Amino acid sequence: MKIGIVYKFDSVEIAREVAEFLEKYGYQAELHHIPSCALEDCGMIVTVGGDGTILRTLQELKNPPPIFGINTGRMGILTHASPENYGAELLRAAEGKLRIEEFMRIEASHKDVRVTALNEVAVVSSVQARLIEFEVYADGELIESMRADGAIFSTPTGSTAYSLSAGGPIIDPYSEAICFTPISPFRIGWRPWVLSPERLVKIRISELRDALAIADGNKSMEVGAGEEVIIKKSENPARFFEKSSRITDMVAKMRSMK
Amino acid sequence: MKIGIVYKFDSVEIAREVAEFLEKYGYQAELHHIPSCALEDCGMIVTVGGDGTILRTLQELKNPPPIFGINTGRMGILTHASPENYGAELLRAAEGKLRIEEFMRIEASHKDVRVTALNEVAVVSSVQARLIEFEVYADGELIESMRADGAIFSTPTGSTAYSLSAGGPIIDPYSEAICFTPISPFRIGWRPWVLSPERLVKIRISELRDALAIADGNKSMEVGAGEEVIIKKSENPARFFEKSSRITDMVAKMRSMK
Amino acid sequence: MKIGIVYKFDSVEIAREVAEFLEKYGYQAELHHIPSCALEDCGMIVTVGGDGTILRTLQELKNPPPIFGINTGRMGILTHASPENYGAELLRAAEGKLRIEEFMRIEASHKDVRVTALNEVAVVSSVQARLIEFEVYADGELIESMRADGAIFSTPTGSTAYSLSAGGPIIDPYSEAICFTPISPFRIGWRPWVLSPERLVKIRISELRDALAIADGNKSMEVGAGEEVIIKKSENPARFFEKSSRITDMVAKMRSMK
Amino acid sequence: MKIGIVYKFDSVEIAREVAEFLEKYGYQAELHHIPSCALEDCGMIVTVGGDGTILRTLQELKNPPPIFGINTGRMGILTHASPENYGAELLRAAEGKLRIEEFMRIEASHKDVRVTALNEVAVVSSVQARLIEFEVYADGELIESMRADGAIFSTPTGSTAYSLSAGGPIIDPYSEAICFTPISPFRIGWRPWVLSPERLVKIRISELRDALAIADGNKSMEVGAGEEVIIKKSENPARFFEKSSRITDMVAKMRSMK
Ligand SMILES: Nc1ncnc2c1ncn2[C@@H]1O[C@H](COP(=O)(O)OP(=O)(O)OP(=O)(O)O)[C@@H](O)[C@H]1O
Ligand SMILES: Nc1ncnc2c1ncn2[C@@H]1O[C@H](COP(=O)(O)OP(=O)(O)OP(=O)(O)O)[C@@H](O)[C@H]1O
Ligand SMILES: Nc1ncnc2c1ncn2[C@@H]1O[C@H](COP(=O)(O)OP(=O)(O)OP(=O)(O)O)[C@@H](O)[C@H]1O
Ligand SMILES: Nc1ncnc2c1ncn2[C@@H]1O[C@H](COP(=O)(O)OP(=O)(O)OP(=O)(O)O)[C@@H](O)[C@H]1O
Ligand SMILES: [Mg+2]
Ligand SMILES: [Mg+2]
Ligand SMILES: [Mg+2]
Ligand SMILES: [Mg+2]
Repeated sequence: MKIGIVYKFDSVEIAREVAEFLEKYGYQAELHHIPSCALEDCGMIVTVGGDGTILRTLQELKNPPPIFGINTGRMGILTHASPENYGAELLRAAEGKLRIEEFMRIEASHKDVRVTALNEVAVVSSVQARLIEFEVYADGELIESMRADGAIFSTPTGSTAYSLSAGGPIIDPYSEAICFTPISPFRIGWRPWVLSPERLVKIRISELRDALAIADGNKSMEVGAGEEVIIKKSENPARFFEKSSRITDMVAKMRSMK
Repeated sequence: MKIGIVYKFDSVEIAREVAEFLEKYGYQAELHHIPSCALEDCGMIVTVGGDGTILRTLQELKNPPPIFGINTGRMGILTHASPENYGAELLRAAEGKLRIEEFMRIEASHKDVRVTALNEVAVVSSVQARLIEFEVYADGELIESMRADGAIFSTPTGSTAYSLSAGGPIIDPYSEAICFTPISPFRIGWRPWVLSPERLVKIRISELRDALAIADGNKSMEVGAGEEVIIKKSENPARFFEKSSRITDMVAKMRSMK
Repeated sequence: MKIGIVYKFDSVEIAREVAEFLEKYGYQAELHHIPSCALEDCGMIVTVGGDGTILRTLQELKNPPPIFGINTGRMGILTHASPENYGAELLRAAEGKLRIEEFMRIEASHKDVRVTALNEVAVVSSVQARLIEFEVYADGELIESMRADGAIFSTPTGSTAYSLSAGGPIIDPYSEAICFTPISPFRIGWRPWVLSPERLVKIRISELRDALAIADGNKSMEVGAGEEVIIKKSENPARFFEKSSRITDMVAKMRSMK
Repeated sequence: MKIGIVYKFDSVEIAREVAEFLEKYGYQAELHHIPSCALEDCGMIVTVGGDGTILRTLQELKNPPPIFGINTGRMGILTHASPENYGAELLRAAEGKLRIEEFMRIEASHKDVRVTALNEVAVVSSVQARLIEFEVYADGELIESMRADGAIFSTPTGSTAYSLSAGGPIIDPYSEAICFTPISPFRIGWRPWVLSPERLVKIRISELRDALAIADGNKSMEVGAGEEVIIKKSENPARFFEKSSRITDMVAKMRSMK
């Protein structure tokens, strides 16, 4: 089985070490500094970096192979092990002894451009600290109309990232939903909306100002004033090797957020 | 088909009017001032009161027949029509021309007592403005441990009731989830948890103080210090006749909340 | 100088130890299990308990002597030292080498009853988890009208207690203000109001349900449906010996709130 | 007395009408399309525009003459009258029959640049939807250290503007305070800080990313990674003619925020 190893620029030694370790056990390991769709034909992917490296890798993949993350970043909420203790667990993953868990992704499309995100698609004002005005529809029904710094459409996995910063709830990563959380809306009262995952969600930007749709803080699409973005559940979920105490680990990481 | 009409004490004339109306069209109408399990063998139930009347009626029913609500209460978020305009829609319901929609209920059990709720089960301190201390588990994993005025376990339908007052998100009534929202927790930071509906949720009350578990603001169970309550999705959902623009109606009602 | 020592039932040995310590240095020490107005003619008060002991002591005092708190409770945000390290600092306080800081108190009056609080006066529903309805006026101008579990009127010192639990901001203890924070209001949008300390604040309870006005979680007044409570800054502030890094200590205590 | 009339580009006819009205009553009226410090030697200023026009006018003035605002903008929370009904009240202002109220401004200084604001100084990331990292000090004591989209330092008047959007409390415009509210901080728990107006507040931007300090959404200063901004109360408050029911008007405007 060919294993693709994607590493962050500051973690190249660890990546080489992982490659040697895998080859020692008869696996063919390929080092990738820049993630690309070539990774689609790997049996599994090992990332050596933080959550960001996993997010950027997934954005290049239509049908992502299962991922095993070795954390050299900050929080490491999506990763499985650290550079000091990955050996045993990585082998069990390669030997198929770990269950594979699927986590919903969302895709945002505008004109002929489409971006996919594991965490969120954030639609923000094109100009810093300047409001945009928009309407949000769920299957054609208007649910919100407001002026705000932006709007976040998040998956359950992304509920602990930018959505959390904007005031969103924590959503069970083992459930499916599209969570709409406005960013600093110019209103006394608002609430996040946790929408059923099958909904077709549309955000219409008013004439006030142009906006940007940014997937996982990485890929962005320009959305002109008066234009729309369609957000819906992607047919191709992200796949990760199981983490025994994923919820307990997540809770601990949340607690540790300085 | 036998139709059970449950009415609030202040709406008895309207209830009689509805009964006559239905009998005119050949239906057998039974007036119930106090909802009881006898309503289980009705083909459908008409409530004449507010959302509260619907909540209290459902609490008596293990397998609830579909409900058509005529609103004489405040918000009327669960009801279908007003005393002035129920005629046509009620007939279509009786004739089976309206789809029947199911909405998740939750049940809370403590020792040998079990209560069911359409909105929420609120676990509150037995003494006003005195904190209780508790831990919350999801399928055995500890997700929260805090001192607070209480804890709310809500369905999507209940997300716009007490859960909303405590700071919870708005959850799509057409989705399923158990939403845990603490009530005024003595903590700088906390977030509501939107848990997958299949989870078995447990709240353990510490030795600090006794608590009360209250279902839909109506039925309550005493929960002594050191004891537990198990919350999970009920096998028997509530059944309502369809409301064409349920979401749009809900959004308007939310807007109108003084 | 006569020093009054008020102790919590579980801290009587430490209280005796403090009394002997002070008498060794020529001060007359009086042990008080129950705080009473007799403490008014002490030169200073030493409390041996938690923040609660300080709050309950102050409630008995019209013109409170300066307080030095030895913490045997939980947070100890109002206290100066621990049972292990009070010696040196307590002596400097007794010798008048520590500046005395004043912190605003509020008083709530209803009919002929008046209660004073260092933290807050909480007006809550007389029945658990049942809403009360009220209007709030500042110098006669209506600022809020809502249904909620209750309403908190807090001092800057109390901004980190019940007011914090209800969602209020942290207010600089060295400033003066009356902060109104509703408790779980049945509304999508609301904000705490930070009012000028000279304002005369009035809360009018509607006919919906009776309420209770509770000062510092201790003394309470019954407030019938349709009745009013007047809240304003007390002429007699609480007096504490200076704490060099009061803000830094407060920030650390807030961080440590599990 | 010379009266300076500052108007927004879309309100020039109304501005001319106001000028003629005032000259009819013997006042010398000067039309200013672009506000400048020349307005300092006017006896009073009439603005014909929205709240924005008032904010931009004040930014040019070290010692602002009293302002009378005629609203052609949206909310008009700082203005006194509408183009249809300004006559009588404007005359009473010019005749000195209206009390003049002072409202605190804040100033932010960085290196040798200083900007003044009536609403707020917002320190935001220089790159859209990218976090900045900063520490906030009050008179040298560290009160917060976080990663966020930015930080708002607001006056009581500005508490209903950008500070409100970020989740800040409503602060009595007749009181004085510096309110620090983070913008979407990457943390579970945070609270706005309402600081005493005499405090010297400092925000230190970490090496993570450059920032921008923007006063009243208008004038901005570049703040490099690792640099600081000092925020304190300005010696020169904004001066407005009295509005009889300023609080009631403000409450109504807040309610009407769609
Ligand atoms: N789903 C998530 N839940 C919680 N935090 C997340 C999530 N995704 C990303 N983050 C956190 O957001 C922060 C910024 O993200 P970023 O993608 O830069 O990660 P990172 O740790 O810097 O990884 P890398 O070094 O690979 O860039 C990090 O602390 C990251 O852990
Ligand atoms: N799921 C819900 N979402 C939003 N509001 C709700 C929900 N359930 C109940 N409410 C509202 O909570 C308030 C109190 O509830 P209550 O059950 O007393 O209703 P009510 O209108 O008084 O009905 P009734 O007159 O039958 O008692 C009412 O405004 C009710 O509409
Ligand atoms: N102004 C305040 N700011 C923050 N926390 C406070 C404040 N006042 C009281 N508390 C905290 O509220 C909790 C309950 O208060 P309580 O009055 O019972 O204190 P306590 O520590 O139990 O003291 P005691 O043992 O004397 O009763 C305690 O954690 C206390 O520290
Ligand atoms: N102190 C404040 N409190 C509440 N809202 C405010 C405050 N200051 C400005 N605003 C509102 O912020 C929004 C954008 O501000 P802006 O300065 O552009 O005002 P505006 O109405 O567009 O005025 P103009 O037409 O002169 O630009 C407007 O709705 C304005 O009323
Ligand atoms: Mg990164
Ligand atoms: Mg009722
Ligand atoms: Mg206590
Ligand atoms: Mg403008």
